Formats: sequence, structure tokens, C-alpha cells
Amino acid sequence: MTLIPDPAQLTARLIRCPSVTPDEGGALILLEQVLGSAGFECHRVDREGVPNLFARWGARGVRTFGFNGHTDVVPPGDPASWTHPPFSGHEADGWIWGRGATDMKSGVAAFVAAAIGFVTETPPPDGAVVLTITGDEEGPGKHGTRALLDWMAARDERMDVCIVGEPSNPDRMGEMIKIGRRGSMTLQVEAHGIQGHAAYPHRARNPVHALLRLLHELTAQPLDEGTAHFDPSGLQVTTVDCDNPASNVIPERVRATINIRFNDAHTPDSLDRMIRARAAAISAETKVDFAISTDVSGESFLTKPGPFVDLVAGVVREETGLDPVLSTSGGTSDARFVKDHCPVLEFGLVGHFMHQVDERVPADQVRQLARIYRRILERYFA
Amino acid sequence: MTLIPDPAQLTARLIRCPSVTPDEGGALILLEQVLGSAGFECHRVDREGVPNLFARWGARGVRTFGFNGHTDVVPPGDPASWTHPPFSGHEADGWIWGRGATDMKSGVAAFVAAAIGFVTETPPPDGAVVLTITGDEEGPGKHGTRALLDWMAARDERMDVCIVGEPSNPDRMGEMIKIGRRGSMTLQVEAHGIQGHAAYPHRARNPVHALLRLLHELTAQPLDEGTAHFDPSGLQVTTVDCDNPASNVIPERVRATINIRFNDAHTPDSLDRMIRARAAAISAETKVDFAISTDVSGESFLTKPGPFVDLVAGVVREETGLDPVLSTSGGTSDARFVKDHCPVLEFGLVGHFMHQVDERVPADQVRQLARIYRRILERYFA
Repeated sequence: MTLIPDPAQLTARLIRCPSVTPDEGGALILLEQVLGSAGFECHRVDREGVPNLFARWGARGVRTFGFNGHTDVVPPGDPASWTHPPFSGHEADGWIWGRGATDMKSGVAAFVAAAIGFVTETPPPDGAVVLTITGDEEGPGKHGTRALLDWMAARDERMDVCIVGEPSNPDRMGEMIKIGRRGSMTLQVEAHGIQGHAAYPHRARNPVHALLRLLHELTAQPLDEGTAHFDPSGLQVTTVDCDNPASNVIPERVRATINIRFNDAHTPDSLDRMIRARAAAISAETKVDFAISTDVSGESFLTKPGPFVDLVAGVVREETGLDPVLSTSGGTSDARFVKDHCPVLEFGLVGHFMHQVDERVPADQVRQLARIYRRILERYFA
Repeated sequence: MTLIPDPAQLTARLIRCPSVTPDEGGALILLEQVLGSAGFECHRVDREGVPNLFARWGARGVRTFGFNGHTDVVPPGDPASWTHPPFSGHEADGWIWGRGATDMKSGVAAFVAAAIGFVTETPPPDGAVVLTITGDEEGPGKHGTRALLDWMAARDERMDVCIVGEPSNPDRMGEMIKIGRRGSMTLQVEAHGIQGHAAYPHRARNPVHALLRLLHELTAQPLDEGTAHFDPSGLQVTTVDCDNPASNVIPERVRATINIRFNDAHTPDSLDRMIRARAAAISAETKVDFAISTDVSGESFLTKPGPFVDLVAGVVREETGLDPVLSTSGGTSDARFVKDHCPVLEFGLVGHFMHQVDERVPADQVRQLARIYRRILERYFA
């Protein structure tokens, strides 16, 4: 008979694994042992030194519910600043203490416990549950969830839907489901003119003025007013640098960096084209040349309201009594990779104490989250 | 009997004095000897190591015509690059060669010769001629003509009008009189906001955006369309610097430098007030603070057309057959100091070869300039 783990106890055991990115720290080894004992087929999908774990219960190719999460944590800082040692998994007064208590060893423990309970007690007759757990979400993320999805694609492994177990609730359990995130891209812009004397600008071409025009055009109007499910996109000029010490000299070059958080009204390509077109128009008029390079760190994703969102929201409502907001706020998560594979949502704990000293979580909140996940599985395969 | 010097010969003798700023090089010593012999009262008005010469013929306090010039020169660079050694004063084929041949030992020689000839042959019954000659016009200029004017003010010495003998003609002798110059000022602007995450701009205040707005406002429209005697004023942003390496971070501070060349539609105060008012309006809206510092390197000056300008232009026309343009173009000269003392014009040689290797001047052009100065003196006191 399979022992169904208590999600709070599993959280404490995971916290005791010092898995600061990129160290595995024993966390995935522990999960592989727990899941393997419960009948999950487990594969370590390490790539370029990054540890990752794939686990499937049920057959390959049938209807499959997926979870995604990570066991790596950010560094604890000075351990002396903590009330209890950061990797102690100390339990007291209903709280579990330590790095990863919120973000997100608790979330992983909750979906692992829920999945084991579900397949043990109410196994779906023709369904599968897949867990994708990475050891690099807090770091570069190049060989974490992406490696798992690449590996799955190569082996015809699938998830039909997926929940990322990141903390999604600002203050109270059940108040928010993340159905999307804005994308992020960074542009480096260099303007190249002709140096000259500040008293004779007609003999020079001031690249600062041309760049000012471009940046002003980009910041004077919002990129959009928001969309059905997204806040407005945002564009921030994060630096401008020229390094010209001579106040009577018009410089030859100036550089700027632009960071854009964009919603589903845009794609990185559409934004890149728009900015290059504006630069080209200014260049045609001023004869100042622009060189632009673009780096996309995450595309936007959106899982539109529909049966999957309704199912999750309904369960959250039943378990918490709150009507969850469907939100697309906040920064990036590995959902930005999963969205290319299948519809994906984020639902997890309350996000208090993330990345902070004395990170901790109420044990009962972890158990409540596991109950929600379990009921989502039951409802999905019903 | 006073010997009236030949201005071309005097130019050559001055060139042989290696008076690279701030070295006196013997040039002012030579002039003091020449002028003293002709009955001029001479005073060395050195300040902070800068050599200066004041010379007056006639009584103090009567109607006085003034000349201003400098004997210092810019460095010759590699003497081996010169056809004739830069301090040789070599004379051949009607040319005088050497550093300062154009800028402006020739101009000084011309007004010294003209003044001596005038007071010797046709002395004004109730007039005076004052020569103010500095050894620091090419350098910082803090203790050159300014020191002479300070010294004169303290002793009730005066000039009622003054000609600065700098080269004023672009190509042909007589084509241009400078009746003014634009002023120059430099502003350092620092914008100070609140640092934050680029994805959450509502929790930060991006000083780059506020500075962009200010700089855009200042560069989008010309400061003016020019005035009766001046080209339009010009404003150049010469550098913007932020030094923020993190593309996902909104920076706290950003700095810019603005250089303004302004005509008589403005004063440094009016420009400073205008920019501070615009900054204050943007600050009120964005809550980004601006710190602005202003450095005025030269106020604009203008001697409006009138009897003095007409007198000089008339003589130039008679001597050269050209109708001189009354111009306010070009960079600064010591006229920017003299203008606080009395009406001032610039008229001198053709400016070819200034600051160049193989600087040289036609001997006849120097003699022509001396004839023009002499006739101006005669006409002024007639």
C-alpha cells in the first residue's frame, strides 16, 4: 500500500535539501524516491548541469494533466539573520520555516502529494498525470523547464493542460489565478552621427538629438490601453549613455537601453518592427544612423477563460469561498515556456515572504493547496 | 623725431618673440619699448602671472579711441612640419611667415603702427589713444583683457570706443566687420527619481523619462528664428549619462549636459529661468527632481549699427572697395569683455592660416590694415 505523503511534512523535508540554484541539493532525489514508490515512472532530464525531473503516472499518450514547479531556491543571505536556520525546515506554531517555504517547495510538495493521493485512491481509468520539476527556475532558466519540454517533445510525452504551482495569491488563499503574463524584451539602441563643434551644429549631426526624438516618440504615448485580460504594456528607458566630457563638442555616438513589458496586443516582432520603422524615419530626416539589437527574454502568454479556467476557478471557489480574480499581472515564470506546449495557469500559495529572510508558510495553507490540486484532478478526469 | 614703424616689419619682429600662451616671450617688452619711444605712457598690468600691456597717448579723461589685441599664440606643433621655422618671422616673396602672422601679431603691429603714425603726424588736439594688449587670449583668458579692464576701471582710464584687431574677414580684406558675437553657456542637469523594477514602473519614478521630456521640449523647437543682427540661437545636448547596467531596473539618476549659443534675444538669466521653469513643471507632474547648474562662458555682445559702425564701414569701403557685411557669426573673442566697457567692433585681417602649420600673412595686407586703422583714427577725431 502506498503511503500518501503529508504535503506540509514533504515541504519541510524539501526545505532541508539546500538546493540553491544550480545545486540539486537532494530535492529532486527525494521527490524521485517518493514518486517512484507511488508508481510514477521517473526520469532525470538533466541538461548542461541543470537537474530536472520528469514523472508520469499512467500511460503515455492518454489524456494527461500536468503540473510544473521548481525545487531550486534563491540564496538565503546571511543565515545569522534568520530566526531559524534557512535550511532547517523548522516547524513551530503551525508554521514551516526556511528558504523555499513559499517559493516554491510547498507548491511542489502540494502537487506531489495531491497527485499521489489521486492516483492511489481514485486512479483515473484512462488518464495520466505528469509532473515536470526543474532545478533552475530562479537562475538563467535555459536548461530547466525548457529542457523538460524539449525532452518530452522528442519522446511524444504530453500534457493536455498544466498548472504551474507558483505562489499566485497576493494576500489570501484563493483570491487570484494567473491566466497569463506579459512578455519582456530588451532593445539596445545606438545612434551614430557626426562629431563637431557645439557652436557649428550645421557642420555636425548630433546623435543625442536624434535618439531623444526616438525615445520621446516611444515614451510620449502608451503602447496600448490594455487588452481584455491584460494591463497596458509598459516601456521603460533604463539607461542612456554618451560619455562625452566636452561641453563644446557634439558627440559621435550615444546608446540607450529600452525594456518593454508587453501584453497580447503585441509580439516581439511587431514591437521590433515598430521601433525600427520609427528609427528609420528619424534617420531619413536627420542622417543619424541607428543600430538596434533586440533580446526577447519572454513572450507573453494567455490562457483565455474557458472550460479549463472555469474548472480551476470553480474548485478554488469551493475550497476557499473566494471568487478568484483571473489576472495577468506580475513578472515572468516558467509558464512562458509551458504555454507553447499546452494551456497553462498559475495557482499556488499566498506569495508573502518570497525571497525574504524568515521565509515561512502556514502548514495548513500547504494542505489546503494540496486539497485544491487533488479536487482539480478529480474534476478534470470526472 | 619719432620713427614710425613699418607694420609688416613690426609683425616679423613680434613673430620672433616665442610668446606661446602664457609666455610673454619678449613681445610685450618690445611693444612697450616701441610705444614708449613714441610718447605713449605704458603700464604692465600683469595679473596671476599673465602679462598685459596698457598704453595711452594723450591725457586721461579726454575723448579716447581704443584698440584691443593679444600677442600670445597657440603652440606651433612640430616645428619640423613648417616650411620656415614657426618663430623665424621669415620674409619672402611678400609674405611673412610664422606662428601669429595672422592671429594676431599682425593686427597688433598694424594698430600700433597706425597709432604711432597718427599721434606723431596728426596729433588730435584734445583726444587720446589707448592700446590694451594681453598675453592671454588663447588660454583661459581670466587675467588677460579682463585684468586690463579692471585696472582701467580702478584708475578712471577709459576707451569711448574700441576695435579688437582679430582677423574678421573670411576671404577678402574688407568684406566683413564683426559687430557682435553670440554668447555661450553650459548647463548640467541631473534628474533624480526612484529606483525600481522595470516591470512595476508605478512603484518607481523613472528619471530618464522625465529628463527625456525636458530635453525634448528644449530641442523640439528652435530657441528663436534669429534677430536683426544675429543668426538663430542654438542648443545642443552634448551628453546624457546614466550608467545603469541592469535592463530590468529603472535607474535612480541620469545626467545631461546642454550647451547653448545664444543671441541678443536672450540672456543667460532668461535662458536659465526658462529651463528651470520647464523642469519645475515636469517635476510637478512626475515627482522627479531636477538639479541644474549653469556656467556662462561668454555673454553675447552687439554694437548696433550707428555712427561708430558707419565710420569704420565707410573707411573700410574707401580703402578696399568692398562694402563690408556687418556680422555676428563665429566664436568668442575678448570683445565679450570689452563690450561691458564701451562699444566694440572687430576688424582685422583675412583669417586664413589661423592656428595652422605654415601660418603666414601678405606684408601688404598688414600695411593696408594699418592704413585703415590710421584713417579710422583721423576720421574719429576729425
